[in-house]
Amino acid sequence: MKFKSNFKVIAPATIANLGCGLDALGLALESPGDEVFVKPSNKTGIHISSILNNKTKIPLETDKNAAGVSAKLVLEHLKTNFDLDPKAGLDLGLNKKVAVGHGLGSSTASAVAGAFAVNEAFGCHLTKRDLIPFIMKGEELAKGQLRVNSLLPSLLGGIILTRDHQALDFHRLPLVKGLQMVVIYAQKQVLDKTQLRNNLTSKTDVANAIQQSANLGAFVQALYTSNLDLLSSTLTDHIAEKHWSALIPFFKELKATALNNGALGCGLAGAGPGVFALCKNSLEAEKVAKAMELIYTSNNIENTVIRSKIDHEGVRLA
Amino acid sequence: MKFKSNFKVIAPATIANLGCGLDALGLALESPGDEVFVKPSNKTGIHISSILNNKTKIPLETDKNAAGVSAKLVLEHLKTNFDLDPKAGLDLGLNKKVAVGHGLGSSTASAVAGAFAVNEAFGCHLTKRDLIPFIMKGEELAKGQLRVNSLLPSLLGGIILTRDHQALDFHRLPLVKGLQMVVIYAQKQVLDKTQLRNNLTSKTDVANAIQQSANLGAFVQALYTSNLDLLSSTLTDHIAEKHWSALIPFFKELKATALNNGALGCGLAGAGPGVFALCKNSLEAEKVAKAMELIYTSNNIENTVIRSKIDHEGVRLA
Repeated sequence: MKFKSNFKVIAPATIANLGCGLDALGLALESPGDEVFVKPSNKTGIHISSILNNKTKIPLETDKNAAGVSAKLVLEHLKTNFDLDPKAGLDLGLNKKVAVGHGLGSSTASAVAGAFAVNEAFGCHLTKRDLIPFIMKGEELAKGQLRVNSLLPSLLGGIILTRDHQALDFHRLPLVKGLQMVVIYAQKQVLDKTQLRNNLTSKTDVANAIQQSANLGAFVQALYTSNLDLLSSTLTDHIAEKHWSALIPFFKELKATALNNGALGCGLAGAGPGVFALCKNSLEAEKVAKAMELIYTSNNIENTVIRSKIDHEGVRLA
Repeated sequence: MKFKSNFKVIAPATIANLGCGLDALGLALESPGDEVFVKPSNKTGIHISSILNNKTKIPLETDKNAAGVSAKLVLEHLKTNFDLDPKAGLDLGLNKKVAVGHGLGSSTASAVAGAFAVNEAFGCHLTKRDLIPFIMKGEELAKGQLRVNSLLPSLLGGIILTRDHQALDFHRLPLVKGLQMVVIYAQKQVLDKTQLRNNLTSKTDVANAIQQSANLGAFVQALYTSNLDLLSSTLTDHIAEKHWSALIPFFKELKATALNNGALGCGLAGAGPGVFALCKNSLEAEKVAKAMELIYTSNNIENTVIRSKIDHEGVRLA
């Protein structure tokens, strides 16, 4: 049995519910990404030896963090189905670079990295697609309603359109070169995702539904035709944003500022509180990032600003 | 001033609200189409000398039929803005091949043909896009809520995605070769469009809105990637069909039969009562058409069945 160790895996942060793509579109950022270091171990099973940047005190116990759970499940699967020593084990070191609870798919990135790392260590028997159920369990998606908007771009990179979550009917969309993403969040604000989901009313206006669908169709058209004006006109959510954004400090000001400074669109990262602005190039992104940051700093809100290209590859060896 | 006469114009029938594209997608049929014959006239202005196939008794008066109104408005515009004899006039003969009131954009086709014919007769000063406001008035769209789902494909051909009706922000989608459309309708059933629009509740479930948007995004993806399996999975309306189809005899049976016989999708043409089935090729379409027809004939419902390719050109010289 081939075994590889002493390597590093990176799984990108993601922005789910991108623009008009509520529960449909997710996008991977080139950075940040959660990192997993794989080292050999004398002990059976998955052991997490260290967590760097562990601001939210994720426990080291394998069963209590997303990377550990997905890694463990993949290892068990490999032992059952492939020619793997039943006593095989791995030591994982996690570097938690994606902030927890700000809408960037943090637990997903850890789960993706953990699952990918184990498969890589023991001979790459599984495809990326094969890893999905293990990752889902790793981030406990399987317990709730199945939503893979963060998982798929972190695994595969790029912009992914999910048509049917249950059937895993998803599609990679083409990318327009040069696009840059800005994300800003107030460091101390962490939203309760269940509360957010509950805040979303179960009904929406038919007019909103029609506009949302036309925008998502036109979003795909814009990517295929590299039409940035069209892309810009589609990047508005007509269903959830008005409910969710009310909880985010200065959202209206952030959005107006981003658009006034040339952003193609601005909205919530996932269900927030992160706010994204998609920009046509790095120069625009720099300008937009500074202007958005000023909104928070001038109001004494500690914040983090991310600028990143779109990731094309998904989870990968570093 | 150049003047051309003794020619024929054809404007195709259309299927608006195609599948997941409620108020967003329209498609042009290669046939039937309304025809306008242009002949010289000694009289000033637009005169309609004959209407063939005039089952619904559309009046000959210029101001009382869609072709006449749009033709008149274009002529007035040309006289005001171009070097046209103020006394210039045209004789139009209309061949009404698109059945009125069955969801095939009948008045639109007439209005498109009338506007195009006059522009063609007097030197083609206007682009197809320029003709849109005159056509809208011709079919009295301008009086109600602006909806151009039928107008655009009849004018331009193909499948058109309209993102914003007011702003006329519309986009031609790519076509998959070989597709054929089947349409069936009960000859004696003509629905009241206002009643239909009122039947649609003003709210829809968020889950439906999300599914509709994901489907429309995936519909565009399917056309760009020529993925017929994906196309098929997207062709369902989650918002209006359940409200509107209840008024259509044997709708459930027609839809099940179409799908069981290999149709990619089946739904309402416009707001009905026409029912369309999109098929991957002419052989499948023949099978589907026969099976759908049998539902109506075996229940003693007089019906019309149309089989047609998708039109690529829109209104044109015959």
